[in-house]
Amino acid sequence: MPRSASAPTTGRDRHSVDAPLTLDEAMAHALDLARRGPAHGPNPQVGCVILAADTADATRTAGTPGATSAGGAEASRPRRVLAVGWHRGAGTPHAEADALARASASGVDVRGATAVVTLEPCNHTGRTGPCAQALLDAGVAEVVVSVGDPNPVASGGMGHLRSHGVAVRTGLLADEGEELLRVWLTSVRAGRPFVTLKTATSLDGCVAAADGSSRWITGPQSRAHAHTVRATVDAILVGTGTLLADDPTLTARPPVPEGEVGDGVPEPAVHQPLRVVVGERAVADDARVRGGDGRFVHLATHDVHEVLARLAALEVRHVLVEGGPTVATAFVTAGVVDEIHSYVAPVLVGDGRRAVGALGGQSIDDAVRWSTSTVERLGEDVLLVARAVRPPP
Amino acid sequence: MPRSASAPTTGRDRHSVDAPLTLDEAMAHALDLARRGPAHGPNPQVGCVILAADTADATRTAGTPGATSAGGAEASRPRRVLAVGWHRGAGTPHAEADALARASASGVDVRGATAVVTLEPCNHTGRTGPCAQALLDAGVAEVVVSVGDPNPVASGGMGHLRSHGVAVRTGLLADEGEELLRVWLTSVRAGRPFVTLKTATSLDGCVAAADGSSRWITGPQSRAHAHTVRATVDAILVGTGTLLADDPTLTARPPVPEGEVGDGVPEPAVHQPLRVVVGERAVADDARVRGGDGRFVHLATHDVHEVLARLAALEVRHVLVEGGPTVATAFVTAGVVDEIHSYVAPVLVGDGRRAVGALGGQSIDDAVRWSTSTVERLGEDVLLVARAVRPPP
Repeated sequence: MPRSASAPTTGRDRHSVDAPLTLDEAMAHALDLARRGPAHGPNPQVGCVILAADTADATRTAGTPGATSAGGAEASRPRRVLAVGWHRGAGTPHAEADALARASASGVDVRGATAVVTLEPCNHTGRTGPCAQALLDAGVAEVVVSVGDPNPVASGGMGHLRSHGVAVRTGLLADEGEELLRVWLTSVRAGRPFVTLKTATSLDGCVAAADGSSRWITGPQSRAHAHTVRATVDAILVGTGTLLADDPTLTARPPVPEGEVGDGVPEPAVHQPLRVVVGERAVADDARVRGGDGRFVHLATHDVHEVLARLAALEVRHVLVEGGPTVATAFVTAGVVDEIHSYVAPVLVGDGRRAVGALGGQSIDDAVRWSTSTVERLGEDVLLVARAVRPPP
Repeated sequence: MPRSASAPTTGRDRHSVDAPLTLDEAMAHALDLARRGPAHGPNPQVGCVILAADTADATRTAGTPGATSAGGAEASRPRRVLAVGWHRGAGTPHAEADALARASASGVDVRGATAVVTLEPCNHTGRTGPCAQALLDAGVAEVVVSVGDPNPVASGGMGHLRSHGVAVRTGLLADEGEELLRVWLTSVRAGRPFVTLKTATSLDGCVAAADGSSRWITGPQSRAHAHTVRATVDAILVGTGTLLADDPTLTARPPVPEGEVGDGVPEPAVHQPLRVVVGERAVADDARVRGGDGRFVHLATHDVHEVLARLAALEVRHVLVEGGPTVATAFVTAGVVDEIHSYVAPVLVGDGRRAVGALGGQSIDDAVRWSTSTVERLGEDVLLVARAVRPPP
């Protein structure tokens, strides 16, 4: 990420910012703040940094309503940070409201200031009031945005601000903003949950030996990683076949970082995703997946699109499909898999059960295209993360 | 590798060594020299560095015949390099003979010197005379070895030297020496060629779509890498099924490094491995695999052990099994695969042809154990290299 060498923020507490920041630095900081919010949940991760007015040309900035220049010389002039904020999940204040509240609580005047926000301020009243109006009411003179809001319900914040004389520009560190909000943006744009398919296979694509032995082909580091992923999604989904074969709990049990527990420090609470079973076979009353927290749902259908619609109605933005082969095949065939987490172990199984079944006899050229995002070694295994490449709609 | 900070050898021409070297440094240098020799061929890669006598205690060293101490204080005393040598492949001088010839040619007296050799000097007359005797004849007083020679025909050099009053020690940088000679040592110890199995599959372990379309699942970087590997092995092996389906040339066509050709510089000659077809079906007269160089053999058998015995008789130390599934399955089932090169592309194929077939219905616990050696990203693909882990015999 571009960042001037004169104001490095690495290595100190980036919450309390004392050094003046350029607009680029402020947006990078806002993105870091956004990452403090939960990755799961219906709302996006958003951060906000409020910079003092650029006194050298405050008049000019305020006098150019609707300006959308991609950044001139003034963009790199460092300015004092008045307040910062970020969103902590549904039902809590949005990032802009959080920053404004902090400014107000510490008696800081933000009139004429610049709000640097990772996502277009919302323009609707949901669980909280509209942020665009809050920024207006506070007297903010300029708003700089990384990514526009594709949500038809909430968008329009930039237009509202411009029409009331606030200078607005968008697209600052847009690639980084899009990357941070990738799951949320994909979900909003597609009108369905983002689908991650997890597979854990041998080198020859088997999930178990022919005789069904050995529940785990991949090693402990892969399993620990998969639990860490579970704790970031809204829902985990399996078919009734996997349910009957394995009786899984489908809970997130990420490894506890060393040194963070013990000595009386309680283990941190882990976000538990909704546990989803699909398929028409019954779920036994004593199936472990039911749990005791009410976060379980059985969708008695094989229709992938119906499943996704039901999950969307439950505010699921990100569903992790964990198997088995029948369900994996259905999601791949439906063309709705956005990302594959392929854990591969160095073992050959031969005629074992395969991760994916018949995909309709399509040739390789017909298959969905994937692009490798990351390759990570996990003990003896390797995790390959691939993203679906779809033509623009 | 352990190396004293006082005599770094990185960053300069390590062929001509002016600075005095400790024994450790001399062995590290000998290993580097060994790597200049060809990786293919029946002979191992060997390097040799001849150090001047340790004048401070030359009398004591010469006076302790048969000493095998693992290195005392004198091991780290730097000494002048008198000559170096390495082996350039079958039919050319061994590393020790090469070093002795260079010393002789430049009028350097090696009497009382220390020969640092990566592999135990041979004790038999093959294409060249025995190196142990050559070192004796030259008056070398001490020999330091990294790895002992497991070859029953050639071994015994250390004993021969000791019985004639030369101080011998072995095991210096032994791990590095074993790693360098891994393929050769495995082949000699097992009495058959080292077997590398190459697979190129989708995430779900398919080598082609169900309709047989798309000869290549993996991308250009993977294919270029595979050609580079071909140029380091003695033989490439496929079954008649692959022959009939693809009519491959089985030549090594590694990418030419940029800047190394052009401007009248001819393309460097690439080592071409022996092309081996196994199976009872006939090989057509116009099959491309026959080539025009006589480096082709058809072994009309399905017996893996017979194939390996035939190849060993042809001085093949390293065979690369490239497929198809029938041949791969036969080699895996026979338990003779030493290394797997698994190229994996980010694509799902579903019901395609699989890299490996039934392995006798064994459960995962029965399968050969593999240990991941390296994981390398190649464009969109990943290459996982796994080594067979076998209990010591």
